Formats: sequence, structure tokens, C-alpha cells
Amino acid sequence: MQNQSQQSVPASGSDPRADSSLTDMLRAQICSSSELSFLMEAHDGLSAAIAERAGFKGLWASGLSIACSLGYRDANEASWSQLVDVVERIADSTTLPVLVDGDGGFGNFNNARLLARKLRQRGAAGVALEDSCFPKMNSFVGDRHPLADIEEFSGRLRAIKDSTADDLILVARIEALIAGHDMDEAILRAHAYADAGADAILIHSRRTAADEIVAFTRVWQDRLPVVIVPTKYYRTPVSAYRKSRISTVIWANHSMRAAMAAMRQVCDRILAEESTASIEPNIATLDEVFELLKYDELAHAEARYLPHPTDLRQ
Amino acid sequence: MQNQSQQSVPASGSDPRADSSLTDMLRAQICSSSELSFLMEAHDGLSAAIAERAGFKGLWASGLSIACSLGYRDANEASWSQLVDVVERIADSTTLPVLVDGDGGFGNFNNARLLARKLRQRGAAGVALEDSCFPKMNSFVGDRHPLADIEEFSGRLRAIKDSTADDLILVARIEALIAGHDMDEAILRAHAYADAGADAILIHSRRTAADEIVAFTRVWQDRLPVVIVPTKYYRTPVSAYRKSRISTVIWANHSMRAAMAAMRQVCDRILAEESTASIEPNIATLDEVFELLKYDELAHAEARYLPHPTDLRQ
Amino acid sequence: MQNQSQQSVPASGSDPRADSSLTDMLRAQICSSSELSFLMEAHDGLSAAIAERAGFKGLWASGLSIACSLGYRDANEASWSQLVDVVERIADSTTLPVLVDGDGGFGNFNNARLLARKLRQRGAAGVALEDSCFPKMNSFVGDRHPLADIEEFSGRLRAIKDSTADDLILVARIEALIAGHDMDEAILRAHAYADAGADAILIHSRRTAADEIVAFTRVWQDRLPVVIVPTKYYRTPVSAYRKSRISTVIWANHSMRAAMAAMRQVCDRILAEESTASIEPNIATLDEVFELLKYDELAHAEARYLPHPTDLRQ
Amino acid sequence: MQNQSQQSVPASGSDPRADSSLTDMLRAQICSSSELSFLMEAHDGLSAAIAERAGFKGLWASGLSIACSLGYRDANEASWSQLVDVVERIADSTTLPVLVDGDGGFGNFNNARLLARKLRQRGAAGVALEDSCFPKMNSFVGDRHPLADIEEFSGRLRAIKDSTADDLILVARIEALIAGHDMDEAILRAHAYADAGADAILIHSRRTAADEIVAFTRVWQDRLPVVIVPTKYYRTPVSAYRKSRISTVIWANHSMRAAMAAMRQVCDRILAEESTASIEPNIATLDEVFELLKYDELAHAEARYLPHPTDLRQ
Repeated sequence: MQNQSQQSVPASGSDPRADSSLTDMLRAQICSSSELSFLMEAHDGLSAAIAERAGFKGLWASGLSIACSLGYRDANEASWSQLVDVVERIADSTTLPVLVDGDGGFGNFNNARLLARKLRQRGAAGVALEDSCFPKMNSFVGDRHPLADIEEFSGRLRAIKDSTADDLILVARIEALIAGHDMDEAILRAHAYADAGADAILIHSRRTAADEIVAFTRVWQDRLPVVIVPTKYYRTPVSAYRKSRISTVIWANHSMRAAMAAMRQVCDRILAEESTASIEPNIATLDEVFELLKYDELAHAEARYLPHPTDLRQ
Repeated sequence: MQNQSQQSVPASGSDPRADSSLTDMLRAQICSSSELSFLMEAHDGLSAAIAERAGFKGLWASGLSIACSLGYRDANEASWSQLVDVVERIADSTTLPVLVDGDGGFGNFNNARLLARKLRQRGAAGVALEDSCFPKMNSFVGDRHPLADIEEFSGRLRAIKDSTADDLILVARIEALIAGHDMDEAILRAHAYADAGADAILIHSRRTAADEIVAFTRVWQDRLPVVIVPTKYYRTPVSAYRKSRISTVIWANHSMRAAMAAMRQVCDRILAEESTASIEPNIATLDEVFELLKYDELAHAEARYLPHPTDLRQ
Repeated sequence: MQNQSQQSVPASGSDPRADSSLTDMLRAQICSSSELSFLMEAHDGLSAAIAERAGFKGLWASGLSIACSLGYRDANEASWSQLVDVVERIADSTTLPVLVDGDGGFGNFNNARLLARKLRQRGAAGVALEDSCFPKMNSFVGDRHPLADIEEFSGRLRAIKDSTADDLILVARIEALIAGHDMDEAILRAHAYADAGADAILIHSRRTAADEIVAFTRVWQDRLPVVIVPTKYYRTPVSAYRKSRISTVIWANHSMRAAMAAMRQVCDRILAEESTASIEPNIATLDEVFELLKYDELAHAEARYLPHPTDLRQ
Repeated sequence: MQNQSQQSVPASGSDPRADSSLTDMLRAQICSSSELSFLMEAHDGLSAAIAERAGFKGLWASGLSIACSLGYRDANEASWSQLVDVVERIADSTTLPVLVDGDGGFGNFNNARLLARKLRQRGAAGVALEDSCFPKMNSFVGDRHPLADIEEFSGRLRAIKDSTADDLILVARIEALIAGHDMDEAILRAHAYADAGADAILIHSRRTAADEIVAFTRVWQDRLPVVIVPTKYYRTPVSAYRKSRISTVIWANHSMRAAMAAMRQVCDRILAEESTASIEPNIATLDEVFELLKYDELAHAEARYLPHPTDLRQ
């Protein structure tokens, strides 16, 4: 009977009490570890459960991937509360800490701190805030997006920190290099954001080599942990990041892109063949779906909580 | 300039006026065509856009797949309004008609008609209602789920029909064979549901061959169009369905299952290799993502609606 | 039996087909009538049903009142999708056309047109867009809020018009006088917004007399219908507005403020008296609640759609 | 400067860390106190803030009132997630503990425990679960609603308790007397629900005198604290409840009914008079609205977090 206590925690339910331990786990990965950490993208409950099952230790709730799965464009078309709702599904589908891509905070300091508190409430362990204006455009679309004023953006960071204290890891994301500014501007911003209370710095680059990132770490000198997103410079081996004492690597959108390619192939095949027979071996079985999402817990719980037919009395 | 009128319809926006034409399109596919029609599963905006791009002519908003992508189990854990919100994203991401898996209607006739009206409002072209009780359990999990009383379920169908008139295709889904009842029961129910106003009958089977389905069509004699879901009996060639004058085949969960398999593989690879380099050729590129979700429309619209820097005057 | 057709439209369900007639009704009130029209504030389903029952012909879904009832401040704390959800409840609780306070559109032209399409989808007949920046602050709080650039704001109006065509009345709200600018600026903006496609102009003033409004109409010369919000200059008799050929008066927040005063009084009384006996005569009875929200329709529908106990057969 | 730390907690933001202390506060009021406690109804953020300001120490998130304010009927038309969203607004607008009317839990044990966890996550301190079937009908509408099977309902209670442990007060609400059953049935159920882990018993009666309630307490003998809802028997003085050692009185819908009466009167007056001048003295001022919802905190926060104009540097 005592073994059933775990079974009473359903697949779809996070334990609210676990929140601060999730934050501690994310802090340990990003801020306290000398090991290089990896966060895997998730955009819904399913992708979160898959990443955990694969063995990842932390998740990145990607703004781009979430927008894509919703059929929105990564330009703040989804509202902040729609983002929060998705993050809830991600957090509820995993026991891993989740760092959320909060874009610029969806407005000014007041919107940003409201977003942060709500993300925390729904189970996020951290938020990354980028120094862009509202509405934002995806970093890889177009050129020279306007950056936020340093003081104004620092106010957003301070407001989040004052609202969530140590309950939410705050990562300040610098878009200066993406937006065509130079390293001095990036370093200036990094110091300002550290002064404002950020727990880590995410330095973003759209170059196909990691040179900008490496150069940044050389000047930055570990004042705060550094997080990177090697979407464009994926050919750089991680040994380079370990050497540069990078804290955390975010694999930012690869589950969504893998899903997209697979769905495209399957749609093409089914349409052409008017049959699913040939693709069956290549797709997950329903039993695998049921296993991943803990349908067995529901069966156990039914045995535990539903009356046996012989007990029924109206 | 006149060519830009199409560009003013954003990727994420359905035209509310198009709704009744969507219903007409779905009616043509399910009810009026002598051709076998196919509906492809979608569970979010992205999968909907992919299925349309592949060339499908209609979509199935699958309850199982939507639950999975939300990290819920297919047991009415997601609320009816959460389902409606997902259907909105699906409908907004495609120009295809969408038939929604409405489970049993989330309660009695009153819940069912409210659901139907809300699905219609968010852009659905049809709803399939199954004769199960609330909360339901997925048809492929467990044995002998209790069926709804015929009169009570017919009341749900009548209530939906009275609330939505001809604006929403109503498919009555019979779970009798799944639940271990015999063909007589299935036929009895089909006639009752036809009397109640259903536009088509979905006869469900969990056998690995289509024999039950074929037997049903033989007795049923085309009183209403027949829709099937060959998830378990996928080896049967569609020629058999054409021969049996089946109206519509639903490929019910294959995009979700393809996505799951692909995300699993990619997670495993990235975790093992600490790199995304080797998977890059196998996943969608960001440019493909941007193209599918019409980022170009946004660029055109920016040129059209945003002031040129030289025009700015505070 | 034929008389029951009306009973099949539930209290909580708007008929999607009625949308364009709602827009036509609002157009008639604001744009086509020589009569002075009145819109009454609503902030939830209950206040909407009450205003309709009282005899009003149109509703104003007030941003301030909706924010208040949600416990948010009128500073774009509520997300655009939370606003849309409230508007759905308002539209579903009434047969009247609803003009929605859309603030500045929650971002740029792209956010504004998405908001407009979604408001239309949920049953709104019109939207008022104000030339403020995001996030906004309530017009009556603080001084000299920055105004939007004229060209940029005109782009928002054009984008909405191109997205919703004639399905949504578009009211351009001018905050120039509120923000401390002069009449020339207000008139300049009014002409620009008319050029951009607005159906009417809402000229806002925080003075306690209607002099600014009257002066505006004198210069404006009826190029487009004029809508006003006499929250501060409530002492001016409406005869003055008829004389100035104002089209529409919005009573912008009075139901919410009446509710607030009444709830405060009742709370005080109950707390002091430890009893509700003395307040019972002053509050609505449950029967009045049930009557307003059409519980009788549900009873009739149960008789129509639920099986009689003797019919039940599993 | 140090005094501003409190000002950094916005009106609209609950501190997630305070949740368990809220549960402790509600436990103290319902379970541990020898004082008679009172919970005041709230149905949105505004009514919650008003009740707190008046001096109440705890809130009742009423299903009936919430349904009414949404324009739904109290028959599980609102989805469980829509209820959860409203509760979030209530919890965020007050520092008081909130006991939520969870109806029957929106389905079986699995729906009930999911609801409970979500209510807890959004800031509720307790949930009252009634032994009705889904969908429910308001206790005061119609006769002899079917009761849930005792074992089945006890399973819902056990499932909630196992999912939320001591983080959520669980009140079992007995509808037996409402549904026309006798006192023996009510007592039988009370003991079963106590055995299942309920923290308190809510015994409901639709009689206009408290005799049923008093009789119940006499037999019940304080095995668990007793909560009552004197909506119909409001003439009974609370001294009678103290004498019967009732724990808690819920004033279940009086703010909503006060708001309804006041909005009706104001609508009638404005419509008849074509003016708001005569009602101005009777409704809350905008300044009172701004004060209650802490617009001053926003002004202070702007001073703290927004850059001074002279600091701006792009």
C-alpha cells in the first residue's frame, strides 16, 4: 500500500510545493555548477515529457517554438497569458526545471514583473528576458532590430527581481550583437544587467561561428554565468564552450524542427499512399504514447478511487 | 497595389466570414461526394499548417493528439474550453475545414450544445460526438467502457443540431463495437442518431482487420455517410473502403505519433553527441519554419502599415 | 412544438450568424442615425444582461471596468486575449451590439489587427482604438501620456480595416486633449484617422465642462460621426450634444462604479450586523438572478432533450 | 528607500510563497478556532478587494456568483479551467484566504483532483466539494437532484487529499437535505466524508429556518467543524450558530446580488434621465476605484523602475 503513494501523483499534476526546489535545481545548473549544462527546447507538454525521458536535466520553453506550435509568428502575436498557459502545460508534464523565454517581458517593467510572477506561479524555474522592444521580431528575421534603452531594460530586470526574489532565476539576454552593435555595447549591457540583479547573462549571436561568443567570454571574465544558444553556430564543438567556461547551452528549437520535418514526411507519405501501413514502423505506437503520459497511473488511480461495482449504492 | 490585398490576411487570422464556406466544404467532402475523402489529424497550429501544405483537403482535430500535446491524458482532463482554444489555433493556421473530435460533448445536452456553438465560433466546420459518458477514456485503453443511453445521447445530438443548424457538420460516433456490444446494437444506435439529426455516422472499431466496419456498411445501406478511423486496421487497403462506399477516412493521430518519434530520436542524439550538427540535415530549417508560417506576410505588412523612418513625427 | 424553437437558443449562446447584423446595428446607431445614441458600459456577462434588460440599445465593453472587475489596473495588465475572453462573455450574454474599448491595440499594427479579428470572432460589433502607446495608462491617471505618432497609429487603423473590412465598426479615439495638446493637434489627428478608414471619431476630454468637445465639433464639421465619453463633464445636459450633432454618448464605467458602491455597502453592513437580514430587501433575489440569466430556458431544454425516466435504457 | 520594498508588490500580484500561510489562515478560521468565522462571497477581483477592505477575514469564491458574472448558468456551463482563471483573479486581488466552491469537482475523482491542484496553484486556500453529479444544477433550482454515490464521492475526496496533502483545506458539502433525503442520510454521508479525509463538513439546507442545520449539529457532535450557508434561512440570528458550535458561516452570493440591484437601478436611471448627474453621488468615484486597486503602487513603481527622461540613452 505504501508504494502507491507515488502513484497518487498524476501525470498531469505538478506538486506546487516542489517549485522552489525546481528553482534551486535550475540555479545549480546555470549558476553553481562548474559542469557545462544543457537545456532542451520544449514547446508543449509532449515535447517536455519526451525531453525528460531522453535524459535531459532542464528545459527551455522557447518563444519561437511555442509560437510555431500555436501557429503564431514569433512577433509577440501570442499574448503573455497564452504563453503562461503553455508554460503551465510544459511544467506539469515534467519534473525538470524550466527556463522560459520571456521575450522582452511583453511591455514595460510592470508587464515584465507580472509575467515573471505568473510564470513562477505556473511552475517555471526561471525566465530569460531580452533587451528588445515590444512587439519583438524573432532574432533571426530581419536586421538591426531596435534595442531597448539600457536603463529602461534594467528597470524591467530590477522589477522582476523585486517581485520574485530568489524564487525565479533571471537570465538577461543581450541582443546587441544580433542587432548589429559591437562588443563594447554588449559588454556595457552585460555589466548593467548584472548590476540590475540578473543571475546570468545570455549572449546571443547569429554568426555561423562562435567567435563572437568566445570573444565575449574573454572580456566578460565570468562576472556572471554565461548562457548561449548555438542555433546558427552549431558546428562549434562544445569543448570550445567548456574551454570558455560557458555555463549553459540551450538547444533552442530542435524538437519543434524535428517534429515539423517528421510531420511533413508523414503527411506526404500518407497522402501519396492513401495508407498509413508503410509509416507505422517509423512512428510512435499508441502504447508508447500511453506509457510516456502515464496512463498506467490513471488505471491505478481508478482502482484506488473508483468504487468497485459491487460497492455502488445510490 | 491591388495584389497586396491577399497579403493583408495574416497567417494567424481566419476570416470569420469564411466559416460557412468551410462548413460547406466539409459537407461536400463527407456528405455530398462520391469520392473517398481523407481527413488528416492536427493537434496544434503547426501540424495544421503542415497538413494543408502537404495537400490534404480537411483536418481532424484529434482529442487524443490534442490531449497528448498538452500533456494531458485522453480522459477529459483538458477542459472543454481548453479544447476550444486549441481548435482556434488549428482553424487560424489553415484554410481547410476542420472536423473536431468533441468526445461525448463534455457532459449532458447542455454542455454539448455549448461546446458545439463555441467550436463553430472559433472556426470549426464540424464536430464528432461519441456516445460515451463523461469523463471518457480513450477508446483503445481498457475494456467495455459504459455507453451512453441511446435516448440521452440522441438528446445531445438534437440539442447541437438545434443550436447550430446547418452551420456545423454533426458526426455521430458509435462506440458500441469498441465497448464490446454487437452489430445489432451498433445499427440500432446508428438509426437512432440519424433520426436525431446526425449528418454522418462514424463507426469505430478496435479490431486489426476492417471486417466489423465492412459488415456495418453492408447492413447500414448508406442511410447516412459513413466515416471511419483505421488506426488499428491500417493494413486494410483503401480500395476496400471505396468498395464499401465509405465516405471518409480519418488518419487520426499520425502526425502526433510521427512528431513524438522524431523528437525522441533528436533528443537522444543531441544528448549523446552534445551537438546538433549531425541532426541538422534531418530537421526543418528555420527558413522553412518562417516560410510555412508566413513571416513574409508580416514583412510585407510592415512595409505597408509601419511608417517609413522619415515619416515619423511625434 | 414550433414555439420551442426560440427556447433552443440558450442564455449563454450567441448565434454566430447574427454577427454581421450586430455590426449593422452598431453602424446604424453610430454612423447612420440622426438620433443621439447611448452605449452603456458592461464589464462582464451579468452587467451586459442587466443593461439590455434596462432597455439600452448598445454596449461599451470598457477597458477600465473590465480591468477593475479582473482586479487589474487599467495599464494593459490584462493581456489582449484575457480582454477577448471577457468580451466573449459580454457578447454571449446579450443580443445588443458591443463596441469594445481596445486601448491602443496592445502593440503595433500587427497586434491591433489580430485583436480586431479576434474581437469580431467573439461577437464584438466594433472596436475603439486610441492613439496611445503600449502599455497605456488610464486617461484619468497622471498627466501628458505620450501620444502615438500619427502615421504609426494610422497604420494600425488601416491594418484593422484591411483585416475586418465592413464587419467591425472602427472608432478612432483621440487622446490629444487628454494629453495636454491643443485643438489643432486633435483636429489634425481626426482628419488623419478619417483618411485611414475610421468609421467614427471618439474625442476624449478630462475637463469638467464640455467646452473642448463642443469646440471640436464646431471645427470638425461632421466629417465623421463623433462619439464622446462624458465621465468628467457629466453635468452638461445631453441637449448640448444633440445641438452639436454628436452621434453617440458612452456611459463609460457607471455600472462598475454602482456595483462597487453597492458591494462596499453590503459588505460593511453584513460585517457589522453579522447578518444579511436587513439587506435582503435591497439586493436582487435569487429568482431575479435566475430569471435574468434564463434558467427557464434550461428547464425547458431539459424537458426537450433529456430522456424521461421511463425512456432510459442502457 | 527601504520602505519602498512593500510597494514593489503590485496590486495584481500574489506572492506564491504566501500560499501555505493562506491555507493555514483558512484552517485556523474553519478548523482550529472556537470563534464563529465568516466568509464573504467574491466573484471577481473587484468584489474580492472590496470584501477585504471592508474587513472580512476570508472569502468564498461562489460558483453561482462566478457563473452569473460570466453570464453562465450555475449548471457547469463554465469549464473547470474558466473557474480556475476567475479564482486566480480573486486570489491575486486580495491577501485573504479563499475557499472555492468547486461544485462536484467537474467529473470523477481524476477531474476533482486536477481541479484541486489547479485551484491550489492559482492561490486558493481551500475547496468545497459537493456530493452532486456532473453536470450539476444550482441547489435552489428544481427538486431532488440526484446525489452522488457515497463511495464514489468519497473517492473524489480521497483523491484530492492525496494530491494536495495539507496544502488545501477540503470541505465536503452535503446536498442530501437539499435533495429531499432525511437526516440519517446526511449524517451517514458526513461520517463517510470525514473518513475520506475531509477537513470540515458543509451541510446545506434550503429551508427558511435553521432547524435542519441545528438538528444536524446535534447529531453530528462536532466530529468535524461544520460550515453553513444561510442563504434561505437568513433570518436566524448568528447567536443560534454560535450556540450550535457552527464553525463558519458563508455569506454566499450577497455581493453579486447587491451589484445586480445597483446596476439595474443605475441603468434604469441613466436611461430615463439621459444623464449620469443624479447618480454620481451614489456610485463610487474613480478615485476610489484607483485607490482600492492600488494605482498608487504603480505610480511609485514607475518612479522606481522607469528611467528618468534625462537618463534615456538608446
